[in-house]
Amino acid sequence: MITTDILIIGAGPTGLFTVFEAGLLKLKCHLIDALPQAGGQCSEIYPKKPIYDIPAYPEILAGDLTDKLLEQCKQFKPGFTLGERAETIEKQEDGTFIVTTNKGTKHQALVVAIAGGLGSFEPRKPLIHNIAEFEDLGVEYIIKDPEVYRDKKVVIAGGGDSALDWSIFLSDVASEVTLIHRRSEFRGHLDSVEKVQELKNQGKINLVTPAEVIGIVGDEKVKAVVVKQAQHIEKEFEIDCDHFIPLFGLSPKLGPIGDWGLEIEKNAIKVDNALDYQTNIPGVFAIGDVNTYPGKLKLILCGFHEATLMCQAAYKIINPGKRYVLKYTTVAGVDGFDGTRKEAPKAVVKTID
Amino acid sequence: MITTDILIIGAGPTGLFTVFEAGLLKLKCHLIDALPQAGGQCSEIYPKKPIYDIPAYPEILAGDLTDKLLEQCKQFKPGFTLGERAETIEKQEDGTFIVTTNKGTKHQALVVAIAGGLGSFEPRKPLIHNIAEFEDLGVEYIIKDPEVYRDKKVVIAGGGDSALDWSIFLSDVASEVTLIHRRSEFRGHLDSVEKVQELKNQGKINLVTPAEVIGIVGDEKVKAVVVKQAQHIEKEFEIDCDHFIPLFGLSPKLGPIGDWGLEIEKNAIKVDNALDYQTNIPGVFAIGDVNTYPGKLKLILCGFHEATLMCQAAYKIINPGKRYVLKYTTVAGVDGFDGTRKEAPKAVVKTID
Repeated sequence: MITTDILIIGAGPTGLFTVFEAGLLKLKCHLIDALPQAGGQCSEIYPKKPIYDIPAYPEILAGDLTDKLLEQCKQFKPGFTLGERAETIEKQEDGTFIVTTNKGTKHQALVVAIAGGLGSFEPRKPLIHNIAEFEDLGVEYIIKDPEVYRDKKVVIAGGGDSALDWSIFLSDVASEVTLIHRRSEFRGHLDSVEKVQELKNQGKINLVTPAEVIGIVGDEKVKAVVVKQAQHIEKEFEIDCDHFIPLFGLSPKLGPIGDWGLEIEKNAIKVDNALDYQTNIPGVFAIGDVNTYPGKLKLILCGFHEATLMCQAAYKIINPGKRYVLKYTTVAGVDGFDGTRKEAPKAVVKTID
Repeated sequence: MITTDILIIGAGPTGLFTVFEAGLLKLKCHLIDALPQAGGQCSEIYPKKPIYDIPAYPEILAGDLTDKLLEQCKQFKPGFTLGERAETIEKQEDGTFIVTTNKGTKHQALVVAIAGGLGSFEPRKPLIHNIAEFEDLGVEYIIKDPEVYRDKKVVIAGGGDSALDWSIFLSDVASEVTLIHRRSEFRGHLDSVEKVQELKNQGKINLVTPAEVIGIVGDEKVKAVVVKQAQHIEKEFEIDCDHFIPLFGLSPKLGPIGDWGLEIEKNAIKVDNALDYQTNIPGVFAIGDVNTYPGKLKLILCGFHEATLMCQAAYKIINPGKRYVLKYTTVAGVDGFDGTRKEAPKAVVKTID
């Protein structure tokens, strides 16, 4: 059982900044995220895209935003349960909640902050009749650890940035990389498209287009994919492989959180924006894109504010009767849980003679 | 008469970010601030102090924060009335407000956003019987334009960073700089204290301590200050000068805004935080440190959020009946009023063969 002060569902920008604000109040946080790394859609969907409306950043790449937020909160030593989806929540008699993931990991906390963004990102799966049989037996929709593919034969399907970028990356790791796409045109960053062209010319990536995977061959594990190609004349053939990775994008789903008894409106969780962004379940808060209230804007900067006010309410739940007086970081500095201290250079009092 | 869409009282971080968010909605802004430059207390009181709780900035100097915000909003060409204090507000029959400053400058807008921070910063004035007679006739409490002092004889009074830093700066501009402080100890950044010591040793700053200015001599303008020194034996003498600049700090005062008929609580303006941060006067909003509501935290990041939601409400007032659909800057880019355009690099669609 993992225990913490505030259990945060979702490790996107709002979740990460919650760690920082909670840390200022000496509260510990643990984050659960279905994606294999922190950063939410900023890291997973558009790490290279510039964002222009983060205050005081005329421009910042989404991936850099994640990095900065991780750096800002690291002194408060957040815990992470990554690549697992929060599945169930149970209120205990002692007032704590136990949240269990799809892999059975249990987390206990007095306060739960749902910072789930648009929901947990679920891969779009291709319509291949027997694909479900091979999930986690050679078929993966998300690449969690590229080392899994070292010296393996890999078939990637897709025509966007994910398919392009992972083909490039794995061409150095896997023994064989085949990229299959239903069109000859790819849609992605110019750099990525050109790099794949180059690797194809060097024979480091096998390109099969226009084509699609229509079946999987294997016993207990994937042994080959059945490919239907439609250039000039239609033909079907098999490609031997250890892994088949369809990368057709992710789509967000509120998922199991939708069954937690929370008041839901327009696929988002209703909260009390007049006070502390608490949901209809006392002790459970919803912050960032996952919540809704009159005038709600799904902007990262709003999540930052909501996280900050939520932490004040969490403090009162975790420290009943104790009064918290706001201290400015410019004045009081920041004390990390790792023993670090940040503070403004002190003024000196010194005689001039 | 200056006309604009949103008239912002206060050019601190919240006011500046309002310009950006309003700009995304194609609304123009004009800012009034009593200080001679934008940035509010970040620029005036603690430009060199690090702030640790701006989201995604593990550390940023307050002055740099101002610079970044100015850079972020400059494409939306804000207007500024600086060094003037908003004094009166009058609602017109056409629904607009006219705000007049202490210098008589008039501004007209449908929406007024008070982003006044802790209030307008008023200098602490020394108790010198005849000082009022010489205000703006050689006595200045804030240095607006250092060039005013070129080749002049200047007496500065004070023992903190402002007195130290301006003595250093003006030692290169004025023909003579005298620094007077009631103690021999100064309180400030080590660098500044050491630099003053060095300039004093080089004869570039005259240091008179422990001493205070007890009177001003002059006809129409300042000609000298009367100084009482108390080292060993007490003595009084005059120092000839063209300017006397007492730098004893600034203290914020809500000021004339307190008489605008706004609902005030704990020296702050009550707003509707459940919707749009509007005050009891429709069309007048209060955002940032100047407002109050249940759970309010006087943090810069909260002002950013409040400004953003306020701009949505302003849009509806300025464009009645028109519906605004939120566009993400990552997707739609940013179109400046100066003709500039920022946008994410477009994905290409390209054949790989």
